[in-house]
Amino acid sequence: MKVLPSIHSPKDLRLIKKELLPDLCQELREKIIQTASHNGGHLGSSLGAVEIITALHYVFNTPEDKIVFDTGHQAYAHKLLTGRQKEFEKIRTKGGISGFPKRYESEYDAFGVGHASTAISAALGMAIARDQKKDGSKVIAVVGDGCMTGGMAYEAMQNAGLLRSDLLVILNDNQMFISQRVGALGKALTKLLTTKYVQLAEEKATNFLKRFDEVGNNAAKLAKRARSILFPGTLFEEMGFRYFGPVNGNDINAMIEVLENVKNVKGPVMLHVVTKKGKGYKPAEEAPTKFHGIGIFDVETGDTLGKSNCISFTKAFSKALLKLAEQDDKINAITAAMPEGTGLDAFRDKYPTRYFDVGIAEEHAATFAAGLAANGLKPIVALYSTFAQRCFDQILHDIALQNLPVVFALDRAGVVGEDGPTHHGVFDLSFLREIPNLVVAAPADENELQHMLKTAFAAKAPFVLRYPRGVGFNVKTDAEPEVLPLGKGHWVKKGKDVTILAIGNRVHPAQEAAKLLREKGVDAGVVNMRFVQPLDTALIKEALKHSPRLVTVEDNILAGGFGSAVAEFLMDTQEDAKLLRIGYPGEFVEHAKSSQLYRAFDLDADGIAKKILNWIGK
Amino acid sequence: MKVLPSIHSPKDLRLIKKELLPDLCQELREKIIQTASHNGGHLGSSLGAVEIITALHYVFNTPEDKIVFDTGHQAYAHKLLTGRQKEFEKIRTKGGISGFPKRYESEYDAFGVGHASTAISAALGMAIARDQKKDGSKVIAVVGDGCMTGGMAYEAMQNAGLLRSDLLVILNDNQMFISQRVGALGKALTKLLTTKYVQLAEEKATNFLKRFDEVGNNAAKLAKRARSILFPGTLFEEMGFRYFGPVNGNDINAMIEVLENVKNVKGPVMLHVVTKKGKGYKPAEEAPTKFHGIGIFDVETGDTLGKSNCISFTKAFSKALLKLAEQDDKINAITAAMPEGTGLDAFRDKYPTRYFDVGIAEEHAATFAAGLAANGLKPIVALYSTFAQRCFDQILHDIALQNLPVVFALDRAGVVGEDGPTHHGVFDLSFLREIPNLVVAAPADENELQHMLKTAFAAKAPFVLRYPRGVGFNVKTDAEPEVLPLGKGHWVKKGKDVTILAIGNRVHPAQEAAKLLREKGVDAGVVNMRFVQPLDTALIKEALKHSPRLVTVEDNILAGGFGSAVAEFLMDTQEDAKLLRIGYPGEFVEHAKSSQLYRAFDLDADGIAKKILNWIGK
Repeated sequence: MKVLPSIHSPKDLRLIKKELLPDLCQELREKIIQTASHNGGHLGSSLGAVEIITALHYVFNTPEDKIVFDTGHQAYAHKLLTGRQKEFEKIRTKGGISGFPKRYESEYDAFGVGHASTAISAALGMAIARDQKKDGSKVIAVVGDGCMTGGMAYEAMQNAGLLRSDLLVILNDNQMFISQRVGALGKALTKLLTTKYVQLAEEKATNFLKRFDEVGNNAAKLAKRARSILFPGTLFEEMGFRYFGPVNGNDINAMIEVLENVKNVKGPVMLHVVTKKGKGYKPAEEAPTKFHGIGIFDVETGDTLGKSNCISFTKAFSKALLKLAEQDDKINAITAAMPEGTGLDAFRDKYPTRYFDVGIAEEHAATFAAGLAANGLKPIVALYSTFAQRCFDQILHDIALQNLPVVFALDRAGVVGEDGPTHHGVFDLSFLREIPNLVVAAPADENELQHMLKTAFAAKAPFVLRYPRGVGFNVKTDAEPEVLPLGKGHWVKKGKDVTILAIGNRVHPAQEAAKLLREKGVDAGVVNMRFVQPLDTALIKEALKHSPRLVTVEDNILAGGFGSAVAEFLMDTQEDAKLLRIGYPGEFVEHAKSSQLYRAFDLDADGIAKKILNWIGK
Repeated sequence: MKVLPSIHSPKDLRLIKKELLPDLCQELREKIIQTASHNGGHLGSSLGAVEIITALHYVFNTPEDKIVFDTGHQAYAHKLLTGRQKEFEKIRTKGGISGFPKRYESEYDAFGVGHASTAISAALGMAIARDQKKDGSKVIAVVGDGCMTGGMAYEAMQNAGLLRSDLLVILNDNQMFISQRVGALGKALTKLLTTKYVQLAEEKATNFLKRFDEVGNNAAKLAKRARSILFPGTLFEEMGFRYFGPVNGNDINAMIEVLENVKNVKGPVMLHVVTKKGKGYKPAEEAPTKFHGIGIFDVETGDTLGKSNCISFTKAFSKALLKLAEQDDKINAITAAMPEGTGLDAFRDKYPTRYFDVGIAEEHAATFAAGLAANGLKPIVALYSTFAQRCFDQILHDIALQNLPVVFALDRAGVVGEDGPTHHGVFDLSFLREIPNLVVAAPADENELQHMLKTAFAAKAPFVLRYPRGVGFNVKTDAEPEVLPLGKGHWVKKGKDVTILAIGNRVHPAQEAAKLLREKGVDAGVVNMRFVQPLDTALIKEALKHSPRLVTVEDNILAGGFGSAVAEFLMDTQEDAKLLRIGYPGEFVEHAKSSQLYRAFDLDADGIAKKILNWIGK
């Protein structure tokens, strides 16, 4: 008989016999694997954290006690245990529940997450609020080892060490970062794992837990005892945390016992838990990077399904960079823990000494690149657009203000699909185009990307190119990358009734829209603008000679974006023009397939054509 | 005879007899005090770092060896020793040299700085470039203890600990942060200082340096030896640095000796140096916070000169917050190491348990506030506008996306005067107004500020109010703060020829401009818009009934700013309107008095009137 269906909330869970919990964890895993195989998602982290989450809800009094997940990749079991089993089947689909914790979705989702390293800050805030309200609740942050490489986590630990409020941080160490040896923290954790206590953890911590039994539940005694038998003087102790661990986080009994024991320890506590990413699903255990975030796949084989044969923007970038790096050994590449996601893995394999993975540390990544550039190298920083928000100040203050030639390749610009609002890169055109000296460009397709990358290195200026997640437009790829004229767009097609000024991945849909418009008797021109800054105002003026009607199309929020720049120009020059701007309105865009989102916001060919017809009254 | 006048570059310095260096340091101090008394500036840090800087240029081969200063407050002696003695007299004045290191100003300024915690990142980048170029140069980062509280510094240390490139980080510990016990780092440093080795440092490190003498210049031996006698197992060692210190950084001979000894140590090295902020100038030693950044003052007494009797925006905020906090004990206030600068010191003194200084850690500050709000409190985060750039992602992703009621009070919005482009807060309206759910407001004067603050807490929404540095407009202050209608501006005065839509501190100059225009026969209306988001489009429509000519005025960059929002609205609605936007064009604004900058960019009453007259062809 299955246990999971009878659990409608953690209150039900807390009534279950301990002996049944391993079965429950197995059921949770099966459900997660099955659902992820249909909907895609962050499989590896969620499989690894099943026991941690089950034990947390078993031991703590949620939702009064608050669990804050860092990043949220690991939270699927949490969703299943907190009344969302039915909804789980629709996770990450249009109208379904989110792949991440969301405050609006459940009272058990204490804090919405998506970007890394925020959980300790938020949990500390909740702990302080609890202290002021004196409601006696507990606050727990569950943080992956990768998230600990971010500066925010350090800022929060420093502050927690000072404030001494009761706060339990569970460091869910799935050794992803350690295996890649990213940063000194990775080394410190490795050191912990090579002590004899890790063997205890791996032998299901039996001896370790016997020691707990001996001292019973007296937390103070326990704390002293445990500390003395464990590795002292770590980074965390220096920060003012009491450190416990490592514990085998995939052993439900061990987890429950250790949580019972640490739950009443006073002050900030760091519980170091070791788990296996992808635990319980062999393909994911063997290929943790592939299964970190995955599309639909075959459960039997672990093979990815439904992949297009078109080359992705990421792949096009990866190839173009290799080509350019071969000709110029000053090119160095930097990633913030995303070698595969950004396509820098190929560069890493070929040029390991010119490749830097700095951890989830976008601020450092940007200013480190500034230092490389200041001393004569040609750095490129490859990030996801949404994570570039983290280094807005560094791009402005350390790079653009000094006019240093750092190139940013922002992948996942525009909507990203199922990961939703925490990950959509729909803000970059707006926050970047206000920065003086900065070139902001977007290639229309995977072929133009290679030319624009060459242009970026040739520009000897701070330069951002942004391009979307997913496949390109299956266009022919030129043999060699060429330098494009800086700040210049080009006519795709002229037309006398209206001109569509398109940027980036909306150029091809705009072309399609022009075809649809012709069927309706509207002669629409199309311009590929290529650059948002500097804006090709000469070309806009030329377009106005063909028609006073201009339409901007962008995979970005309307406020302050590309169309906004065109509106500024038109108002400033008092051109006799009419403007229709198509993009995302002033609200956060929910999760759904990218194609569904383009549809919903009239950003596909049909939508663009429809909007234009409405606008010109046809 | 004076030594300083004969030093035209560090090459001259390196020819000077060691015995003369204490005199030279004295001369540097006198020059710094005299100049700062006329020009204002960051006096305390620069006085404390005189010996560090002199010793660095004496021991290292600058400019081939590169010194990166963190924040740059401490760099005045560096400017004086690197060929800028004459220019130093005009420091921080219009057309004169900058108060901060600038790459365009001198080849000795290896990296431009202003915001905290960037130096280790930039220096590491330079070190890696050096390794690739194999030029054998040295790279040194000089970092204050405050800067070490920022997450970026941690990200950089982690990366440096991994990369093992030769890099010397001088931790200039002037105990500012320690005395205020900000963060666990402060505690760790205090612990170091309470070891017996601090006594050595304070006794001019004589015994300590004898040990160096014994081992001679053999760096490897020295390193091992020094490490064994010093405090082991610190935070820095965990990060992969070799730690040396503490050393008395105000003893020029001690500094030279220790630098000679550590300069060839391999890998990342942290040299912990203790200095006195304001060293050698009694008023600054006794009031380090006052003399951290100061306007003109009397050298004899240390009294500040030329202060206006008008209440500053900061003071108005400080008073209004106290009043509101008295009525609502859910109000909690957070600063990132700027209690005096933001005016939170009064709140701190009255409500110490509801006050949080998190260190120079804007990212954590924002998300910590989100945590407080998520658990039912009413947090306000008081920052300078320019430093809010550091938490752009946190405002967007952790606060606005969850619609959490966190209030941001952004002081120093608009131009800040003599600190120049690293500190001007001219970007906030642009990067904030693209964020959905976020209210963005700016009070016209010190009286409206109190009403807007009350409005912010009443709005129960993410809310930013931004206001400028310096004195208000000497307006009458209402007895009680009142809630203003959200997203609504108001008519100051109607006019039939043109309507000026002004925001924030440009409302009063716009009123003055309207008076000047009347003298020229132009009837100009004035609207105080109060909110950039939501924009009062109804009021703009109403304005268009009086005149089709609109003028926007803002203390912000034009790209994406307030006028841009108006341009978007006008183009979107196809209103038959003409728009003139006044603000900063697409370039970084240099340093000068704020009044000079308003003048230069036509943002004062004369400039606004002149631009309008030109525009309407009168």
